[in-house]
Amino acid sequence: MLSVNVDLVDRSYPIFIGKGLLGSPDVIAPFLHSGRILIVTNDTVAPLYLKQAQELLGNCDAIVLEDGEQYKTLETVRKIYDKLLADKYDRDTTLVALGGGVIGDMTGFAAATYLRGVKFIQIPTTLLAQVDSSVGGKTGVNHPLGKNMIGAFYQPECVLADTEVLKTLPERELKAGLAEVIKYALINKPEFLTWLEQHQEQLMALDGETVSEAIRISCEQKAEIVAQDERESGIRALLNLGHTFGHAIETAAGYGNWLHGEAVAAGMVMAADLSMRMDWLSQEDALRIKNTLKKFGMPVAPPADIGEQQYRNIMLSDKKTRAGKIRFILLKGIGNAVLESDIDSELLARTLQAQEQLCQT
Amino acid sequence: MLSVNVDLVDRSYPIFIGKGLLGSPDVIAPFLHSGRILIVTNDTVAPLYLKQAQELLGNCDAIVLEDGEQYKTLETVRKIYDKLLADKYDRDTTLVALGGGVIGDMTGFAAATYLRGVKFIQIPTTLLAQVDSSVGGKTGVNHPLGKNMIGAFYQPECVLADTEVLKTLPERELKAGLAEVIKYALINKPEFLTWLEQHQEQLMALDGETVSEAIRISCEQKAEIVAQDERESGIRALLNLGHTFGHAIETAAGYGNWLHGEAVAAGMVMAADLSMRMDWLSQEDALRIKNTLKKFGMPVAPPADIGEQQYRNIMLSDKKTRAGKIRFILLKGIGNAVLESDIDSELLARTLQAQEQLCQT
Repeated sequence: MLSVNVDLVDRSYPIFIGKGLLGSPDVIAPFLHSGRILIVTNDTVAPLYLKQAQELLGNCDAIVLEDGEQYKTLETVRKIYDKLLADKYDRDTTLVALGGGVIGDMTGFAAATYLRGVKFIQIPTTLLAQVDSSVGGKTGVNHPLGKNMIGAFYQPECVLADTEVLKTLPERELKAGLAEVIKYALINKPEFLTWLEQHQEQLMALDGETVSEAIRISCEQKAEIVAQDERESGIRALLNLGHTFGHAIETAAGYGNWLHGEAVAAGMVMAADLSMRMDWLSQEDALRIKNTLKKFGMPVAPPADIGEQQYRNIMLSDKKTRAGKIRFILLKGIGNAVLESDIDSELLARTLQAQEQLCQT
Repeated sequence: MLSVNVDLVDRSYPIFIGKGLLGSPDVIAPFLHSGRILIVTNDTVAPLYLKQAQELLGNCDAIVLEDGEQYKTLETVRKIYDKLLADKYDRDTTLVALGGGVIGDMTGFAAATYLRGVKFIQIPTTLLAQVDSSVGGKTGVNHPLGKNMIGAFYQPECVLADTEVLKTLPERELKAGLAEVIKYALINKPEFLTWLEQHQEQLMALDGETVSEAIRISCEQKAEIVAQDERESGIRALLNLGHTFGHAIETAAGYGNWLHGEAVAAGMVMAADLSMRMDWLSQEDALRIKNTLKKFGMPVAPPADIGEQQYRNIMLSDKKTRAGKIRFILLKGIGNAVLESDIDSELLARTLQAQEQLCQT
């Protein structure tokens, strides 16, 4: 078993990574307190892992929500509140998120706001959730006018990332998760990109040790950045590489049609393209990014039907926008992400129009 | 102008108390940052003070909600989110709560959760909000199954308590606010009870200096307790004197029929009665509490139509309940509140049945 500590002074917590953690009561035992436990999961994950999780956690009750980003809403969180209140769960309750990022974000938000805060534990069942949403305490829901617009910063007691559960993950979701793994390499760990390129086959075949190591490095990268900037007032924004474009794609395409990781993959290619147009990134490096993502089976262009003005409108209402300026994370080379909001409108227009021609001047 | 500092390490903030603060831009100026401001108020307060507040805050926009505890819901907070998103308010936004406790609690919750947290300022316009809900960072909304079940701890940048606005407050609400003022005396400041008894006339006539002093002492009492226990893991629970019974009255009577302060007044008499039955409080002191509240024009008995079992059911789902035990704040003498969850069921039954006979064995 590998582990990563997310170091946040009085709210630090460990991430445990390894094969079969869902069947290892010893690992989670120190984090279970005297109160009741409620598992929050969805109708895709429940048939696969709910029974095992209930055995792990002492046969506690569960609420099974509908699966999908389109259900990541206040209305769904409301169902968690209703269940908790109807069954009289008190402040000593621990909520356990068993599922992907959507379940983790909603469970975390419910935990942050039920009775003004109860404990929570994450058991992420997608690669994306294991490397991204389980680290850093961002919780929340979408709003018709934008993703993750309502939420809170709230840290779990611990995270169990069992690599075994990835075997039932649809291939499309596995690839989407790898997009975020590649993101960490692009932000500040160029040697990790080389490692990923070299281990592509093992990763996509879900070789246990290789996957655990990729998760460990990803979590460590994110944990390091989050520890420096828990509430995203500075450096943490770099984790949004590919996300300004990516969120716009998700919003324009309608939640749930593009997987988050897929949108981030295409968004990173757009960020590489814009970086290249600003003479910050060589065309060679921009193409390397595009080709690596392509080799991992990810989309490397946005859908053709989003117009330039639609992008601009959506991005202007992104919560990263400040004082009317859209904030982009761009690359001054692979492994050197920077925040930039002063973008030449003409260069941006070309990126927004490039489609399949991204990174190819 | 008087002021009280709420000392919470990295989230400390001042409360300014005095006549005409709504017309004093100098006081609030240091707390206004570069971003946009949105005032949240209701349709009772808006015709009276919105224009003045907008002048104070540089002609910012406002959202006017329906007035009343029955609108303290997720659905109403949702209207604040909708407005913020439709008008593209970003993370540098400051929300200003202009109204009573309901507006303060909902605005604080919206600020805590919009884009995972924006700044907020409170301008409480009721006595209750000035002495209670503006201190301590409790924010949230009600749920059909209980009061304040959904919320967060979130601190304002500052609080402006303008005593001038109390002149338009209905007398019933003024009295309800005084119930909370009296509460602070009962918890840990017995000499304040004597002062309040001596200044009853000036207080009820809204003499500016007397009212300011009563607000200052109340805020100081609450601030001192909150500073020791921000997240209510211990001593802060004492502030709930009268609230376990009071919340049950509010819930049973239907939100909005009893004012919070009125329910707390009757709840404090019930707490005094139970304390007396446990031989912790003399009958003389119990009657002094009841009579003082009565002299200030407050209800000193719960409504006749709430049955014993109904009380017990509601109290069991109170968020202060732990491991199935209802937690009461009782008095071991005036000025000495204690937390007790081990209550003889028979004694509790007598308190729940006493009605008009409370404190009269």
